[in-house]
This record gives sequence, structure tokens and C-alpha cells, in this order.
Amino acid sequence: MKEEKRFREMIKKMKAYRYALSLIGWDSNTEAPRNAFKRRSTMTAYLSKELFLMQTAKDYQEVVNILYEKYEDLDDLLQREIKKAKRDLDKVINIPENEYVEYTKLINDTQIVWEDAKANNDFASFKENLEKIVEYNKKFALYYDKLANPYDTLLEDYEEGMATKEYDFFFDSLKKELVPFVKEILKKTNDKYEELNKTSFPKRGQKEFSEYLLEVFSFNKKSGLIKESVHPFTWNTSPEDVRFTTKYMENYIFSSIYSTIHELGHATYEQQISTSYDDTLLNGGTSMGIHESQSRFYENNIGRSLAFWETHFDKFKEIFPEQVKGYNPIDMYKACNRVQTSLIRIEADELTYSMHIMIRYDIERMLFSNEIEVKDLPKVWNDKMEEYLGVRPTNDTEGVLQDVHWSVGMFGYFPTYALGSAYSAQIYYAMKKELNIDNLIRENKIKVINEWLKDKLHKYGSSKTPKELMEMITKEKFNPKYYIKYLKEKYSNIYN
Amino acid sequence: MKEEKRFREMIKKMKAYRYALSLIGWDSNTEAPRNAFKRRSTMTAYLSKELFLMQTAKDYQEVVNILYEKYEDLDDLLQREIKKAKRDLDKVINIPENEYVEYTKLINDTQIVWEDAKANNDFASFKENLEKIVEYNKKFALYYDKLANPYDTLLEDYEEGMATKEYDFFFDSLKKELVPFVKEILKKTNDKYEELNKTSFPKRGQKEFSEYLLEVFSFNKKSGLIKESVHPFTWNTSPEDVRFTTKYMENYIFSSIYSTIHELGHATYEQQISTSYDDTLLNGGTSMGIHESQSRFYENNIGRSLAFWETHFDKFKEIFPEQVKGYNPIDMYKACNRVQTSLIRIEADELTYSMHIMIRYDIERMLFSNEIEVKDLPKVWNDKMEEYLGVRPTNDTEGVLQDVHWSVGMFGYFPTYALGSAYSAQIYYAMKKELNIDNLIRENKIKVINEWLKDKLHKYGSSKTPKELMEMITKEKFNPKYYIKYLKEKYSNIYN
Repeated sequence: MKEEKRFREMIKKMKAYRYALSLIGWDSNTEAPRNAFKRRSTMTAYLSKELFLMQTAKDYQEVVNILYEKYEDLDDLLQREIKKAKRDLDKVINIPENEYVEYTKLINDTQIVWEDAKANNDFASFKENLEKIVEYNKKFALYYDKLANPYDTLLEDYEEGMATKEYDFFFDSLKKELVPFVKEILKKTNDKYEELNKTSFPKRGQKEFSEYLLEVFSFNKKSGLIKESVHPFTWNTSPEDVRFTTKYMENYIFSSIYSTIHELGHATYEQQISTSYDDTLLNGGTSMGIHESQSRFYENNIGRSLAFWETHFDKFKEIFPEQVKGYNPIDMYKACNRVQTSLIRIEADELTYSMHIMIRYDIERMLFSNEIEVKDLPKVWNDKMEEYLGVRPTNDTEGVLQDVHWSVGMFGYFPTYALGSAYSAQIYYAMKKELNIDNLIRENKIKVINEWLKDKLHKYGSSKTPKELMEMITKEKFNPKYYIKYLKEKYSNIYN
Repeated sequence: MKEEKRFREMIKKMKAYRYALSLIGWDSNTEAPRNAFKRRSTMTAYLSKELFLMQTAKDYQEVVNILYEKYEDLDDLLQREIKKAKRDLDKVINIPENEYVEYTKLINDTQIVWEDAKANNDFASFKENLEKIVEYNKKFALYYDKLANPYDTLLEDYEEGMATKEYDFFFDSLKKELVPFVKEILKKTNDKYEELNKTSFPKRGQKEFSEYLLEVFSFNKKSGLIKESVHPFTWNTSPEDVRFTTKYMENYIFSSIYSTIHELGHATYEQQISTSYDDTLLNGGTSMGIHESQSRFYENNIGRSLAFWETHFDKFKEIFPEQVKGYNPIDMYKACNRVQTSLIRIEADELTYSMHIMIRYDIERMLFSNEIEVKDLPKVWNDKMEEYLGVRPTNDTEGVLQDVHWSVGMFGYFPTYALGSAYSAQIYYAMKKELNIDNLIRENKIKVINEWLKDKLHKYGSSKTPKELMEMITKEKFNPKYYIKYLKEKYSNIYN
């Protein structure tokens, strides 16, 4: 089929540009010197423009549309690919070239603006850029579908099949079932493990433990690496080049441990995808929610289990003998699962985590339905924090400025974090039917868990939808009840 | 002028591609995981092809040729730029597209082949790739000028105005004046400082001293960074993004110190160029020889001076109290200038260094005039080592496989290393007329030396030729006598 060959060649070429832009992003987020941003911004604008021209070129449109018309004649994989291509095309086709280039430049320039604003607790200096970013996102969503709620369009970008209707149901379940439970637990929490969270753990030792974790989780270092950045993230261009970052805080040991394990979840997913998708649109994880289910699974279901600390406490103690004097594995388990009202999402415990997401979901929903404006964000943020978590940030650094997402134009992304945790609980109960998870952790055989996930989920890349995958793995539709059940079981147990 | 504007736009766009390819190169040489090379190679081939198409496009040829015809009407800077553009165009224009793409892919793929060959002392596994690289280089040189000696064409690529005639004169002077002197010195050398070169200096301390050197040499860390790689090098995309690498060898402390200072010389040159050239072809250092004159100046004229060790020995001793017990600054000065017959070029002392270059020059000259073939290289290499330095490598890892250059197709590059040292000696005597160099080093005011070099040399970027710069700085033509004089003075003094 002639069009298929043309389509394939075009995709490959676009991938080369995405590869370059992606590597520039990796560099910019992990090591590029500060003053490099000016040159980078100019150069990136050129490359983005070229990519944009290809993505919107008449001959590309033609090829995609021809194949889309022949949809029924295509094989399954090509069907899925063309469906994605068609959506991506329709998303971008109506954006005027200059707006696209300006937006890309804006996002690049905003990085340093946000970093400075966060460092200096100065929301005002970030406000103008954020307003522009929000406006562009609304505009772009309406270009795609002028009748739809712009926020629904954005939500669907990150998670196929999930829009406000579905998320409202999901978050309402959590509000109903979880918020009262969280309030009960918060009454019972005590400061017994507060000290551990304040002890100084030298960075060198933390790095050593992170390196050890790479072995424990069987991360393939020939096809990846670990580095540092302000906000931990995973990056990949193929299953043979998967990198991630972590963050070392001397006075908060669990930050680097659970950032590392969390990103190891994302990275393991990417490393285990079949390389046969590399030159197609079906490479990479299938959705943000499914991706997050993997990072949360590794972080929480494995990393925050008692079995984990029973197995790895000796190594931890070897590196930090002074710091953990008098502690045992059960203490570590309780300390890393200590529930408290944290200000910072990425430092939140597993139980209160989804409260942080609900705040962001509420805010994004209101922002995109024009109920609030960007200038209102600091106050609305703090009000919501009080409502769901009972604390009020005293500055924006620990409030509305804490996350990178909005500064890079990611609206509709946050809800997938909570969704991912809920997916992971459902996957956890499915896995338990086939594997003795705790025993595998105790026998240092996490590789077996990796293999199970590879076979059931990872290897498929984006060739299946989130919905298809959840049904294949768990034999039923996504259901938030498993998440609620899992959290109630775990925390009732810890807090009696 | 309409053409000028078109020319400027085309150059800017090409620069975006070079920027991306360059960053991919930086990544590949400093951290990319091993298995990433497959994907990188495919992606790079696409981007290189796009760049090649732009560099050879009819409309670009047209613009360059129109401007070249109007040469006399252009201002000085544009004249220089168009001259460069015309040469670059003529170099590339006759290369068939597929050969260019294949060559780029070959170079990429060869990196890992060379690394493995070097690691396993296995020249045979590298031979085939190297043969292809040599053949491409001969072919490409003949495409440019079918009547010229291909090696002359390659030499001119790295150093305007220097071909075999000029280099033969230069190296003959060294052979006549320096080889006998070196032989005298080698008789006098003793093993007094051998021990220091064998003492173990933990990497952590070496890194600390390297960081200290960045302060001493006033390196601007907001516009650059230091990293590690197998073969130290400097990389830049603008004066605001200049990065370099060093290499830490636990049992050879001078390796990291002088790699760091050497690269600081390259990096300082790049950081001090006017940013006004960023969007032109006049950005970056003007030639390999001039670039090397700066790295050699910082490394040898500053870093290997007695004044340097008098000033920085205290800090060094603070980091390595055990290792330098019983040593004083004079010992360090003598140890770092200890003359010996080394097998490895980058570890060679300042005096025998040019012997290593003469070997490579002789070999390249013979290879490109078909007097020898690639398969002969290990033997010819070892014979030449015996002839000039009186030692014979026992394996190719320490012989013909030691340098990265040929594996990336850089033929004609090596001679600029010796030329750079000779330039730097001439610049040194010119600077001495205006500055008290030793005093500035002792007062920790290397910044003043940086400023002098910025004003006389660095700021111009590539807007002046090497010849123009040498005459502007030293008020006379390049003359190897200064290099010979400098080495004889320094080493007669050290070895009485």
C-alpha cells in the first residue's frame, strides 16, 4: 500500500525532530548552564517550526486522510496508529503557525521565569506568562473542537476516554469514601517518626542507596541512566534509551528513595516496551494514567511495603548506621507511611496524595470554565488546601508555585496522577491472584514482577488503549473501589 | 540588500540543525547509555540529511554566489563570512547526498567500534571502518579540488593558510632544533618524581581541585559547566553555553589537573567571544591552531609554571595532605614538567609533546599519498615511536588506537596541536612585554590575563584569520623560533 509507506517515512522524519527537541529538553532540565536558555530558545523555535510544518503539511494531511478513509482495510496496529495520527492532526491543523511558534517559545522562556518565581516566592513575576499559557491552551482546545468544553479536550489528551464526567465520578467517590477516612487517620497520627524525617542523611549515602535500588529493581543500565534535577522525571526516546532523575534532600531521606523508585516504575515500563514500535506512533507508554499506575505501583505497592523494608533495611543500615540506630524494618515501614498534612504534593504520603490532586483538578476545572482567573490562583489554592487538608501555605513557593506542570502548559495532566494510583490498586489485586508479591519482594525477585508486568502490560506500548489494558489485566472495567479498599486496608492496619 | 537578508535567514536555520546535532554529540560523548547508539544513529542520519539538503540547496547556492560576486561591495565582516560560506559550499556541493549521509552514519557507528577496539586492543575490528573513513576523506577532498593533494585540502580545513609546504617547514625546524635537545634532556631525566605520578589521589579530591581551578581561572559557571568523558574536550553553541570535560585517573594526578586547565583554555576563548557573531558564520574560535594556542597557553605557560604551584600548592596540600607530604611547590613544578618518553600523547610532557604530533603528521601524510595503507598503521606507528621517542608500544591500545580523531574522520587536525603550542610561545613573549605574567599568577589575578587575551584575540571570534591575529598580537608573522626558544629556556633551567 503506497500511502502506508509514505506515512511511515513521514513519521520517521518527524521522529528525528522530536528526538532532537526531546534531547534539548533533557539537557535543559538536567544540566544546561543557566545562560544557555537564550540560545536554546532561538534554536528550539526553529526546529519546532520545522516540525510544525511537517505535522501540518498538505501531503501529510493527504496521506493521513486517505488512510483514515480506508480505516476498515487496515490491520489492527495501523488502525490504532491512524486514529492517533488523525487526532493529533486535527488538534494541530487549525493552529496558526505563528501561534504555535510563539507558544513553544513562551514555554521555553517560562522555565526560568517559573524557577525564579518559585525560588523567590514571587507569583506576580510568573503571573503574566501563566496567563498567556492558559489562554493559548483554551484557544488551542477550541480550535480542535469549538463545541466541547476546552478542559474536556485537554483531559482527553492525557487520558483517552477520561473527561470531566468520568473524573467527577472518580473524585466524588474519593471525596465520599476517602475524605472522612483521612480525617480519622489524621487524628490518630503521632510524631513518633518525625525525627527520622528530620535527620540529616548525607547526599553521598543517598546516592549510594539509589544506585543500590537500581540493582534491586533490575534497571537496565546499558539502556538508561539516573541523574539529578529539581523536579524528578523520566525521559526516553526508545526502550534502549530511558533516563530518569531523582532529587536528594539531606533532611528528607524518603524524598530521594521514593522519587527514585517512582521514576524506576516509569522507566521500567518504557524499557520493557517492544522496540518494534520505535518507528511508529505506538511507541512509549499508552497514557499518563497507565504510566502513573506503574510508577505508583513500584513506589507504593512495592517500595512502601513492609516486605521491602524487611529485605533492604540491612543495606540501608550499612550506609547510614548512625542515622537509623534503634530503628527496625517495622519502624521504617511506619515512618515511610506516616500520614500527615503536607504542603508539597510530591512529598505527600500515599493516603493524602489524592487530596492534593483534587485541589488541582478543582482549580483547573474552574480556570477553564472562567469561574476564576490566574490572578486568583494563590488565594484559591490556599483556600482549597485548608478545605481538604486543613493547612494553609504561608508562601506560594510551597503553594501554587510548587509544581512545574502549569509552567510547561500541562493542564489536564494532574488528574491522571490520582487515576494512576487507582489503576495501580486494581492491578495490584489482579497480580495478587497470580503472584505472591510479598514473597517475591522478600526473595529479592522483583524481576519476576517486572516480567509479569512486561507480559501483561508494558510490552504493548501504546498499541492498546488504557481501557483495553485495564480489562485485559484485571478482567473488568476500571473501578475506583479497589483504590479505596487498598488504602483502607493498609492504613487501618498501620494505624490500628 | 535583499540577498544578505536571505543569506542571514538561511544561516540561522542551518544553525538550529547544527545546534541539535551538536547537542546530540555532547550527550553521546558524556553520558548517553551504551544501547542508545542505535536510535541516535538513525535519528542523526535524518537530521544530517536535512542539514545537508539545506547546505546544498539551489537557493542557498544562488544567494552565496550572488554575494560572492558582489564581494567588493560587502563590508569587512560580511566579506569574511561569504568567503567562508563559499569555501564550505564548494567543499560540500560535489558530494553526492547518499555519500554524505552514509559517511555521517559511518562516523556515528564507528564511535562504539573504536571504543571497543581500544578497550580490547583489537585494531583488526576497527580497521574496516577506518579504511572507509580514509577513503571518504580522500574522495571528498578530491571532490573539492581534484588537482590538489587531498591532504593539503584537509590541512587547510583546520588551519587557513597552512598546508604541507608550511607544515614541512615548521616540523623540519623542530626536527632540526628540538630532537637533539630532547635527546640531551632525556639523558638527564631521573626518577625523583616518579613516585608522585604513581601515588593514588582519590577521585573525590581531584574533582574538588578541578572545581577550585574553575574559580582560579575565573570560568563563568552561569555560561558553562565541567563534566567527565573518556577523552577530554570542549563543546559550545554560543559564548553563553560553553562546556568541557576532564578525566580523572586515580594514579595520575596530573592528568585531571592539566586536562582541566587545557580545556579551560579552550572554554575561556569561547566564553570571551562577542555574542554579536552568534547568528553568523564568524562565531567560535577562528581555527584549530589558534584554539590550541589558547588551551596550551593556559595549560603550559600558566599551569605548568613555578608561579602557579607557588600560589596553589597550599590548596592542593589541603585536599591531599598525605599524598604530598614532604613536597614543596618547586617539587610540584619539577614533577609536572618531568620529561619522559611517554606512550600516550595526552599524557606527554610539554617538551616531548610535539614528537607525538610529528608521528601523526608523518603517518597522515603517507596515508594520503598512498605510501602506506590502513592495515600498515600499527606497525608504522610503532616504528615511528621508536624513531622519535625511543620506545615501542606493546599494544595498540597505547599505540595507534589511543586517539579519537581518526575514528571521527579528523585527518589534518593533529598538526594544529603542535602549531598551537608554537603560536602560544610567540603570544607568550608578546604578552610579557605588557604584563608581568608570573606576578599576576602569584596574585591570583589570572582574570587580568583573560582580559588581555579577550581584548587582543578572543573577542574577535572567527572574524579574523589566524595569520591576521598572530600579526595583530605579536606584531610579526608566525615564527617557530619562539617555540624553540621557550622550550630550550624552560627545560635548560629545570634540568640545569
